[in-house]
Formats: sequence, structure tokens, C-alpha cells
Amino acid sequence: MAESVGKDVQDVKLCLLGFGSVGRELLAMLRDVEERIAWQCGVRFLIAGVTTRHVGFLDPAGITAAELLGMLESGHGSLPGPAVAPTELIAASGADLLVEATVLEPGGETAAGHIEAAFAAGMDAVTVNKGPVAWQFQRMRAAAEIHGRRWRYEGTVADGMPVFDLVETCLRGCTITGFDGILTGVTNYILDALGEGDSFDDAVAYTKRAGWLEADPALDLDGVDSACKLAILANSLLDTQITPDDIPRQSIRGVTAERVAAARAAGRRLCFLCSGRSHDGGVDCSVRLVELPLTHPLAGIRGSGLGLILHTDLMGDVLTAELDATTQQTAYAILADLLALRARR
Amino acid sequence: MAESVGKDVQDVKLCLLGFGSVGRELLAMLRDVEERIAWQCGVRFLIAGVTTRHVGFLDPAGITAAELLGMLESGHGSLPGPAVAPTELIAASGADLLVEATVLEPGGETAAGHIEAAFAAGMDAVTVNKGPVAWQFQRMRAAAEIHGRRWRYEGTVADGMPVFDLVETCLRGCTITGFDGILTGVTNYILDALGEGDSFDDAVAYTKRAGWLEADPALDLDGVDSACKLAILANSLLDTQITPDDIPRQSIRGVTAERVAAARAAGRRLCFLCSGRSHDGGVDCSVRLVELPLTHPLAGIRGSGLGLILHTDLMGDVLTAELDATTQQTAYAILADLLALRARR
Repeated sequence: MAESVGKDVQDVKLCLLGFGSVGRELLAMLRDVEERIAWQCGVRFLIAGVTTRHVGFLDPAGITAAELLGMLESGHGSLPGPAVAPTELIAASGADLLVEATVLEPGGETAAGHIEAAFAAGMDAVTVNKGPVAWQFQRMRAAAEIHGRRWRYEGTVADGMPVFDLVETCLRGCTITGFDGILTGVTNYILDALGEGDSFDDAVAYTKRAGWLEADPALDLDGVDSACKLAILANSLLDTQITPDDIPRQSIRGVTAERVAAARAAGRRLCFLCSGRSHDGGVDCSVRLVELPLTHPLAGIRGSGLGLILHTDLMGDVLTAELDATTQQTAYAILADLLALRARR
Repeated sequence: MAESVGKDVQDVKLCLLGFGSVGRELLAMLRDVEERIAWQCGVRFLIAGVTTRHVGFLDPAGITAAELLGMLESGHGSLPGPAVAPTELIAASGADLLVEATVLEPGGETAAGHIEAAFAAGMDAVTVNKGPVAWQFQRMRAAAEIHGRRWRYEGTVADGMPVFDLVETCLRGCTITGFDGILTGVTNYILDALGEGDSFDDAVAYTKRAGWLEADPALDLDGVDSACKLAILANSLLDTQITPDDIPRQSIRGVTAERVAAARAAGRRLCFLCSGRSHDGGVDCSVRLVELPLTHPLAGIRGSGLGLILHTDLMGDVLTAELDATTQQTAYAILADLLALRARR
């Protein structure tokens, strides 16, 4: 059990479902900024439960991130206990907050069930799993309301790049009328690599080796990842009910180095653009290959970077972007949501 | 006096110092979104006092923006009463909030006095006047603390483009280590116009006719406006004590169309870049002419648009930008600050 801290710092216990590179990065970040966030935000996060498919950890009293990292080190990188079924872990952990970081499953059914179980157990929830937000938005919102709980999902669109926080606290009073964004880093990288003369297959192989490509490459290459993010944005910001399955999407398969080069020679850049527009009859969303002029604000979003232009009625067009997108930025998205839910100052 | 509204909507009375195109735009915006912000934020803003150098308005009971716009219309665009000295108006208005929108004065002494008077009268303050934030930051912060009041200044750097709100609520826990931005629209526009073949004098004349150039052109052309914004950013985000007078700055005078064209031919764009860096010994700030590659995220900030890259320790580099910058965006900055101070939901 973690040593107690000053009485003006509140302990908040976390239950983590899924524990890959982002989970490890989150632990390291929590360890590194423990003092800073205790002082700035009046809160300390303890880990009460973690589970993956194969191994797990449970201590309802909670231990610090540093302590759990120590256990991982002595366990040769592995969690110390057996895997626990997620709903059992949620109940047994007695945690204050669920972090849903399991693998994306189309439909989002399983992860939605985890979040509902957390709400029912009196916990708030942070998800970086896109499934429940892209496919089960209305159900999640209703469940949160019924149980009087809160949920956040900043990391589902573009890591810790401010989107939902931004609209909520920096664009108060504005109506969001639409958006255009580059929201999948892997496809953005591949299109750039084609421009450098790489073949499509070589570029894809590189992103696979680098660990950027989803286990099922179709999720990235055929725009499913982008469509998920569009559905999340549209459900959340345009007040509609849409799933990724409703969104027309192109694929970047078949794009040739010649096509990218021809665009470049004409002062344009081929981008995999996610667009959403609100209109009287509803909402239009699409994932398309589009040539943007090099002077377009999204044309400067390179490599793994992501960017989004929000169209608003009172503030015109506002651009937000992250220039790096690594597991660190995803881990920060979780930390930002944890703090949005529990910071006391 | 304004008709009363539902008991779950709170009236907040404003005292406006300075009333030019931004003030009129703010009134129109308050009128247009009155119902929306009552419903979304639980607040209605009334006008209790306004003054310029020549005319004024005072009604401690407060009237709606629509009512004051009606008076302006019947008064051929002019406020209905005589000018009132700012400190008298602050005392007589009985307002809850001061909006400081008088003209920039190097040193910021006069406007700082207005804000202090408001704090002493129990009012919070919003300023779009850069002076008190650029030159008198520590004094303003101390005065707010002594009187237990709050102040906001989002509009002093880049209109309603989220900067301070963003750091406060979307980048919790991050340390800001520096920033790079294009923060003066007029100079950005002039450099673009040179690239289109305009002469320097023609480009300057155009921005003057359009009403974009400061009355004293040196403020824009010689980087004073940019240095003010840098000082505000550095004081607020890098926790230092600096004034615009401490910041080395270049001028865009003497830049030729040939220089801009040569940069462009080399795939680069000449920008008037504001940079700040925190290091062990303190903070370095500068306003410089810099050639950015066209692939740089700030190279896409065109025309009157403004953009800022924030360097952070936990979230890497985050870009925020406004793609339009008109008086509407400045008026929105005031509204955003008013809501940040007084929104009840």
C-alpha cells in the first residue's frame, strides 16, 4: 500500500483494462509527475487493478505507479498476478476511475460493457478505446446519466491533442458547424513516404515494423480508423447519432508514388481527409483522398502529426494540432482526462 | 432596465472602457447569442456603463445589448450620454465585470490603473488591452490576489484563439518550455503581399486603408505588437518577469519583394516569428524574420491568420491557430473570457 500523502492531496484509485505500451508509458508519466500534479492539482493517482488477457494485478488499497513499475521490473516486465475478468476486476478493485484501454473491436460492445460496469460500481471512466464512443455513444451517454457518472474520451481522436476539452472550455458559446482533419497518422505517413519515392508496399511494411500499423492493416489503410474518429467527433460535437459504418470512406490502397509526385509538382499535397458538416437535414461525414494546396493549414501536418480544423459560428475556423504522435501523447491523453475528472485545483 | 430572466439565469453587469469596432461587435454578439448562453451557461450579460473619450452611457441597473444597440441606432451610432472618467464610471456603474478595451499605451500605466480600480470595487476584469499584461503583469497579478479578484486576457495575444484557456484546461500537468508563433496579422499579410509582387509601400498602404494597421505603424512594422504578445506569453506561461522593452526585435521595414520571392523559390516562406524559450538561467525571447520551410506547420498560417506552437514536456508540440482574424474574433475573445469567469454551467 502506498504511503499516505498530505491531507490536501487526494488519492484517486485507478483500474486499468488493457496494458500495452500506452499503459506502461502512462505509469512512467504518473511516476515522473507525481509531485507536480499533487502540488498543482491536489491529486495522486494510485493503481488498484490492472488486467490484460494473460496477466493481472489487484490491490484494492492501491499502490503508486513507481511501486507497480518496480514490480514489473522484478517480474521481467510482466504483471505479478493472473489475468482477472474485467468485470470482476472492476468490482474487486474498489477503484474510483476506470481506464478502458483494451483493443478496438468493431461495434465496441465489450468495452461498452466494461464502462457500464464501472458506472454501475460508482466509478467514472476514461476510454482511449474508440469502440464505445464511435459505435455506442448514445448508450454510453445514457448510462453515465442514469448512474450520475462522468466519462471522457479525449484520447480516442488524436491522443492528447485538445479537441473535446477545447470545445468545452475554450470555445464556450460557439456552435460547431463542421470540421476537417488529418486524423490517422499511419496513412499520413505512408502518403508522405510515397512522395519521397517509396513504393506503397515498402511504406506499409515500414509502418508495420515501426509498430504504427494496426494488427489488421485494413483498419488504417481502408479508413476505418479515420471513420471511427469522425463518428466520435460527429456524435460528440454535431449532436448526431452516427456510427463508423454509416460513413463513406475511400482507401489509400492503390495510391501510387506517381500520383503523390504529380500533386506535389502542382504545389499540392495528397491527404487522407476526414470531414464532417452539419446542415439542416443532418450531418454529412466522409473520409476522402484530397489534394490540398501547400498553403492549406493542414498541409503542414506531417509524419505522425495530426490536425483538426473546427468550423465555428462565433470564432471562425480554429486549428488544433499535435506535431508528434507517439505512445507518450496517448498516455498524456489519459492523464489529461484523469485530471479533467479529478483535479481539485 | 432589462426585463428579468428565469431564476436559473444570473444577470452579470458589465462596464466597458473603450468602445470602437470591437465593442460594437461584442454588443451584436451578446445580442445574437443571449438565449444560447442563458441556456448553455446560465448567465446573461447586461451593460451598466460604457465610455469613450467623447461619449458614454451609464445605467447601474443594466440594459441588454439589444437595448443599447437600439439606443446607438437612434443616436446615429453614438452613445447617448457624455464621456465619464473611467474610474468614476467603474464606481458609478456598480458592475460585476470590467472590460478594458482602451487603446494600447506603452507602459500600460493608465489601463493598469483602471483594472486596479475595478478590483478595488469588487469587480473581475477582462482586458484586450495588451499594455497592463505586457508591462504590468506582476503588479496586476498581485492586485488581483490582494482584492481576491480574477482577471483574464485571452484576447491580448491572438483574439479568441485559445492560448491561456488551452494551457489551463487542456494541457493540465504539462510544463510549457517555450513557443513559436506568428502573432501579428498585419506583418504576416504584408510579407505575403510582397510575395505576390506588391511593393512594401503599397502593401502597407493597403493594410492602412483596410483599418488593420495600428494608428502608429511602428507598433506593427517594428515588432512592438509582436513583442507585447511575447511578453504576455512569457510572463504568463514561462513564469518570468519581462516587458516588451526587454525583447530584441527586428523590423519588416526594408524587406523587398525580391527577398520574399527568393525564399519562395527555395521552397521557404519568410515569416515574422515570435519565439520564447525557457532555460535554466531564465527566458529568451525574440521577434525575428525567419525563413520557414513550406512544410513547417506555421507556414500555412496565411493572410490575417495567427498561429502558435506550444512546446510542452508531456505532450510534445501543440499547435493552435485561428484562420480568420477580424474584429469578430476579438469580440469573441472577450465573450470567452466573460464566460470563463461567470458561466455557471
